[in-house]
Amino acid sequence: MLAQLPPALQNLQLPLRLRLWDGHEFNLGPTPSVTIVVKDPQMVTQFTHPSLDALGAAFVEGKLELEGSISEVIRVCDELSTALLDEDEDSQPVRTVHDKETDAKAISYHYDLSNAFYQLWLDSDMAYSCAYFETGSESLEQAQQAKFRHLCRKLRLQPGDYLLDVGCGWGGLARYAAREFGAKVFGITLSKEQLALARERVKAEGLEDQIELQLLDYRDLPQDGRFDKVVSVGMFEHVGHANLAEYCKTLFGAVKEGGLVMNHGITAKHTDGRPVGRGAGDFIEKYVFPNGELPHLAMISAEISEAGLEIVDVESLRLHYARTLDHWSERLEDNLEAAAKLVPDQALRIWRLYLAGCAYAFARGWINLHQILAVKAHADGSHELPWTRDDIYNP
Amino acid sequence: MLAQLPPALQNLQLPLRLRLWDGHEFNLGPTPSVTIVVKDPQMVTQFTHPSLDALGAAFVEGKLELEGSISEVIRVCDELSTALLDEDEDSQPVRTVHDKETDAKAISYHYDLSNAFYQLWLDSDMAYSCAYFETGSESLEQAQQAKFRHLCRKLRLQPGDYLLDVGCGWGGLARYAAREFGAKVFGITLSKEQLALARERVKAEGLEDQIELQLLDYRDLPQDGRFDKVVSVGMFEHVGHANLAEYCKTLFGAVKEGGLVMNHGITAKHTDGRPVGRGAGDFIEKYVFPNGELPHLAMISAEISEAGLEIVDVESLRLHYARTLDHWSERLEDNLEAAAKLVPDQALRIWRLYLAGCAYAFARGWINLHQILAVKAHADGSHELPWTRDDIYNP
Repeated sequence: MLAQLPPALQNLQLPLRLRLWDGHEFNLGPTPSVTIVVKDPQMVTQFTHPSLDALGAAFVEGKLELEGSISEVIRVCDELSTALLDEDEDSQPVRTVHDKETDAKAISYHYDLSNAFYQLWLDSDMAYSCAYFETGSESLEQAQQAKFRHLCRKLRLQPGDYLLDVGCGWGGLARYAAREFGAKVFGITLSKEQLALARERVKAEGLEDQIELQLLDYRDLPQDGRFDKVVSVGMFEHVGHANLAEYCKTLFGAVKEGGLVMNHGITAKHTDGRPVGRGAGDFIEKYVFPNGELPHLAMISAEISEAGLEIVDVESLRLHYARTLDHWSERLEDNLEAAAKLVPDQALRIWRLYLAGCAYAFARGWINLHQILAVKAHADGSHELPWTRDDIYNP
Repeated sequence: MLAQLPPALQNLQLPLRLRLWDGHEFNLGPTPSVTIVVKDPQMVTQFTHPSLDALGAAFVEGKLELEGSISEVIRVCDELSTALLDEDEDSQPVRTVHDKETDAKAISYHYDLSNAFYQLWLDSDMAYSCAYFETGSESLEQAQQAKFRHLCRKLRLQPGDYLLDVGCGWGGLARYAAREFGAKVFGITLSKEQLALARERVKAEGLEDQIELQLLDYRDLPQDGRFDKVVSVGMFEHVGHANLAEYCKTLFGAVKEGGLVMNHGITAKHTDGRPVGRGAGDFIEKYVFPNGELPHLAMISAEISEAGLEIVDVESLRLHYARTLDHWSERLEDNLEAAAKLVPDQALRIWRLYLAGCAYAFARGWINLHQILAVKAHADGSHELPWTRDDIYNP
């Protein structure tokens, strides 16, 4: 039994209470907003060296319980780790193998978890990527529709355009592009659960003539320039640095001359890939997105460019993603009982931390979201883009 | 005397005539639009291995004369070099020293040439950078004013904002920002000729209370975060790859937390700096912009980002620069007699080729122009930018 806090913790002023396995409580500040329940005596030493990864892992493994709002838990734990850890204690990111089999397993691990679970906290179209808040006060539903519209407008999507959607998820964007912009869409995913529900929804809307969805690896895409436009949302994060060049060349090969390619994805803060925040990257790799690798904007821009595509428009939506994740996290927290019936307890613990943690990471600027629009110019250097971006805002 | 063309040239079909020192003429195709007058017998061998650099140098040195429109000359010479040179014959770019003294000399070489000469072909505000054509059909005057406005809008410039203008040229943007947006401006340049005329124009408009202009190296800028906004137009091309990190850190140090930094400049096509077009880079380095070095978008983005600035908005204006240079080149061609009285014959030859050549290079996509907007976020990751870019287009 501990008579007192470890010395390192005694001088901190944080709104944090530790409750031990035997009922003893220690307040690190006057009015605790968060309580960490330590169920295993061996865990106490963790608090003298509290990396976010280690705390997260302990929660996932049931060695800790958390009381208080999940977003406040994340904030206070970050303050704790900031106070006690040196910045250079960050671990270096692991670079993993990305072949078709490994990638398919990694995608399945995350996206095949349970459609019903994702429906609990995503919008009704199940857009599982950064929304677009035009005023900052609209609902998640509205902001996800606005994201679809913003992407279609940036792509200057026209009736009859043949659109390739790489990583189509549950098909929300594909159906929007077909329904609202009259596009013909070919969408691919590696998740069987996504594909099944996405096809169901296409059929329910009677859009089978306009939309074809396939379980397909991006490396197997046709390379005959048959597509007028390409959109890839929340996809390049799964490709891996070693394969980014091949990925970009594949998009180049799929789109016609004069065509547009939109990459919308999460980017790293640092060009050398070193993590930001006191040890918060391993948790994501281990529990959330195995085989995920975030490129810096400069890295993905270089690969897009070397593949022969010209970058014409980049927009950061970092704070939009923070707000999107706030919505998701709040909706999940409001539906914990229902969620517990749909996924194993450990998965629920992981998703709770991941959603609140990523909301925090985007808000702090540890990670970013960039929409990168590129054109495959004609051989003489020309393209058909309008002179300005005014048409996106005054269509 | 040549009885016939060198074999390499005999099978070409180009609208090109060669006229030799002795009056002999050879047509490379049926209806020549361009005539190259070869004044020196030793030059004939150049045409079997016609890099754009070598042809340009020969013209500058008076060994060749050119007949036909200058833009057609560039186009036909590129076809000639494309037909006869291998792509891998490109020379690698020279990386040069960039200390304050060398940089000051390099800037002086180009920008101190003659204010009256630049006035012959620039717009009345002497904006010596890519204009912004909102419809594609407006005049150069209108498009340069639109460029100033576009930059000020992207910077969300407010009355009373303290704006740093790094590389202020003849002060057109500084006066626009002060006059139209009520900003207080501190502008710096390394060109004495620019500074003198810029100060004169500030005085003529009665803007001395709002605008201060100094002959100053960027490395000597105050680092106390005193500026609300920073704008740098056509400047980072002179910094040099080795100094880009220091340059970006200096802008970071000059701007306050929450402030915006706009870099508007020419970017390279390839990430490794290899030249594009058959040997067209050395001419620029030797005769036009000594010590100039174009970074790829990925390189300047990486440096901006590693300096602590977050990239929020990138826009390519490549075809705008092609059109701007067309205007400049046409205006110079229309004023050759007046120009010849203002600068040495060799300088006029250089500037004629450089303007028409760069118009061609932008049109073909050999080089690009990117406006890169970044924010210095607050320590907690927040900033005051609006949710969308709509305000730029609907102010």
